[in-house]
Amino acid sequence: MDKQLLQPVKGFRDFLPEEARKRQYLKNKFVEVFELYGFEPLETPAVEYQEVLLGKYGDEADKLIFKFEDEGGRKVALRYDQTVPTSRILAMYQQNLPMPWRRYQIQNAWRAEKPQAGRYREFIQCDIDIFGTVSPLSDAELLSVGNGLLKNLGFKEFQILINDREILFNIMNGAKIRQELQLPAIQTLDKLDKKSREEIEEELLQKEFSVEDVHNLFNQIDRAKPTETLTKVIKYCENLGVDQASVIFTPRLARGLDYYNSTIYEFVIEGYKAGSVAGGGRYDNLIQKLCGVNIPATGYSWGFDRLLEAMDQYKLLPINKTDTNVLVTVFNSDFVEKSALVVANLRENGVSTEIFPDETSKLDKQLKYADKKNIKWLIVIGPEEVEKSTVILKNLETGQQEDMKLENLINKITNKD
Amino acid sequence: MDKQLLQPVKGFRDFLPEEARKRQYLKNKFVEVFELYGFEPLETPAVEYQEVLLGKYGDEADKLIFKFEDEGGRKVALRYDQTVPTSRILAMYQQNLPMPWRRYQIQNAWRAEKPQAGRYREFIQCDIDIFGTVSPLSDAELLSVGNGLLKNLGFKEFQILINDREILFNIMNGAKIRQELQLPAIQTLDKLDKKSREEIEEELLQKEFSVEDVHNLFNQIDRAKPTETLTKVIKYCENLGVDQASVIFTPRLARGLDYYNSTIYEFVIEGYKAGSVAGGGRYDNLIQKLCGVNIPATGYSWGFDRLLEAMDQYKLLPINKTDTNVLVTVFNSDFVEKSALVVANLRENGVSTEIFPDETSKLDKQLKYADKKNIKWLIVIGPEEVEKSTVILKNLETGQQEDMKLENLINKITNKD
Repeated sequence: MDKQLLQPVKGFRDFLPEEARKRQYLKNKFVEVFELYGFEPLETPAVEYQEVLLGKYGDEADKLIFKFEDEGGRKVALRYDQTVPTSRILAMYQQNLPMPWRRYQIQNAWRAEKPQAGRYREFIQCDIDIFGTVSPLSDAELLSVGNGLLKNLGFKEFQILINDREILFNIMNGAKIRQELQLPAIQTLDKLDKKSREEIEEELLQKEFSVEDVHNLFNQIDRAKPTETLTKVIKYCENLGVDQASVIFTPRLARGLDYYNSTIYEFVIEGYKAGSVAGGGRYDNLIQKLCGVNIPATGYSWGFDRLLEAMDQYKLLPINKTDTNVLVTVFNSDFVEKSALVVANLRENGVSTEIFPDETSKLDKQLKYADKKNIKWLIVIGPEEVEKSTVILKNLETGQQEDMKLENLINKITNKD
Repeated sequence: MDKQLLQPVKGFRDFLPEEARKRQYLKNKFVEVFELYGFEPLETPAVEYQEVLLGKYGDEADKLIFKFEDEGGRKVALRYDQTVPTSRILAMYQQNLPMPWRRYQIQNAWRAEKPQAGRYREFIQCDIDIFGTVSPLSDAELLSVGNGLLKNLGFKEFQILINDREILFNIMNGAKIRQELQLPAIQTLDKLDKKSREEIEEELLQKEFSVEDVHNLFNQIDRAKPTETLTKVIKYCENLGVDQASVIFTPRLARGLDYYNSTIYEFVIEGYKAGSVAGGGRYDNLIQKLCGVNIPATGYSWGFDRLLEAMDQYKLLPINKTDTNVLVTVFNSDFVEKSALVVANLRENGVSTEIFPDETSKLDKQLKYADKKNIKWLIVIGPEEVEKSTVILKNLETGQQEDMKLENLINKITNKD
């Protein structure tokens, strides 16, 4: 096969065991924490009708949707996000779902984006939302899940940046920014997370803003206060156990202004530079627009790859190259039974164990395999051991080796003695 | 939105929480058991170059592959199985993988099949294989994983039907069946799992077979003995702890004769009628054909949907409609803090808990929600309770209700007293 064809398609990724295991670990953590907070899983198909997806994300996004015709001439497309499929579910099953409905969805999404660092054409998107209530308590509940997740993952310092869309427009109106300049101003101000105030001032002046505009804008930002709703969200977060110091009122925070209508927020990990690891807010009018049922909603997406990268940075990922605890070697074909018995016994005791699956291989080769896979314990059972009813147990991390009675093996390996 | 568009695309499925939870349960079991046996996860992209997939599965299969052009004009296709992507990985990473390599892969596959009962266009395929050895011990190791999985899932009676491709051709040659009639004979005989001997005889006679042919065929089948290799596989299975009574030498078993070259097998659950839940065998020459690297291989696929159906039949799936253990109601907006404190406390103790996320909802509505979601425990904290520093704890299964001191709540709910 052509060498180039051995590579995954541009923008797509293979995950070999070490990487796949890390991803599985994070996915399991998501599920564990989400379920502790009472959220329910939802799965929707990879393929939807184009009519369901197109026109829902804007013209630019439509270009990024992978579209095709199936063999029956149906115009279909690959899942682009979780919100639109979920709104289809809401419209279809509204009566059967317990409202307010808390659901999470951890599935791949596909986007034909220009591949670049940290951006892929196939990626896990993890959404968590509450549908069916406008209460600020539901926003706080969602923030408390995120707080619980990041703590469970082992992050020590992180912030929840929070704002209300209303505040942004109050700032604009307070600074007397003309309607048509409000959006550009908001977008520029939102870069205050990555640029200094001076740089942002410079950038505003280079656009159509006057010195007075800039002065007024910053003045308004400095004086901005949380809305009544936002105050409640923040208080309820505290009630639910979120450390108050990590919830930061951030009046410049803008996010996707097109469909959020009230509270918006981002989770930021201290010291992780690539950007927020999660973000979202309240979008009470979107489901109506998407699927014609009037269901208020609030929620956000986790950037799976970013979170994984941040965990890597802080060494919060399991580092074991293998889940295998023990390799039982096979001396030769006459000794398969003896080795196999030990293997079966270890497995019954919950010890992850491999038998070297080729009885014709030299011991040397079997040892190399254990080394390559970073397996901790090696067991050898040869003629002498059978004679003495023992096994040789070697700790490949320390190089220590000892003869062991079979009955002591489990305790030794599971560290119970 | 058009009513019809609310349905998933034909052949695709939505999984609402109850169903999604069952699927997650089975996926986790796969992972748990596979890792106990030392198998490693692999993930490959949903999208591959058409050149990688086409021509690998035969002309009929090629028609079932979902094909499209991405925005860059690349001819790509959706994953059709796990074997071809894995062979790409083997060709690319051969030097880095520990050989013999044991890997599993649990991912969706897509096929444009005519939708029918039990057949979907998007389904989970779960493959488990050992690459890099021709040893019968590796086949036995794979069968022992399957045995371990079915036991772990709770199945009491199942069989592993096993055969060697060589035996089938020995039967044909022994019965003096002409070369060009061997395949039709084999295919007909393989139906002996679903039809009686008489029916099969009838079917053979209606084809081009003589009475003598039929007599010879059954005579050969009845006298067939395992090959030396198969004898070893069966013995090693026993050594590894597989109950000997469940390994059944089945000389009529044929499977995909096109690429298996030796041992073949199927897992069959007693009393489950839709067919085998897993099947595969040794395919030592396929990887070479697919990707030009000479790596012997053995392994099989689990039918995820069938296994789930069989588990359902034997009531082996978790039946909880929710993972939520406790709903803490909110009396009114003044009582959010009191309720939230209890929620945070329960969660810290690992109890899956929801706060009703709308402080303006009447208690009645909150109770209905708990009922609809089948939540076991309901907690109410009103003015009287705050006064007395208690909560009302109601068991919604029994209807029993009691006043509880906060400090006794956790023990009561976790059943520790």
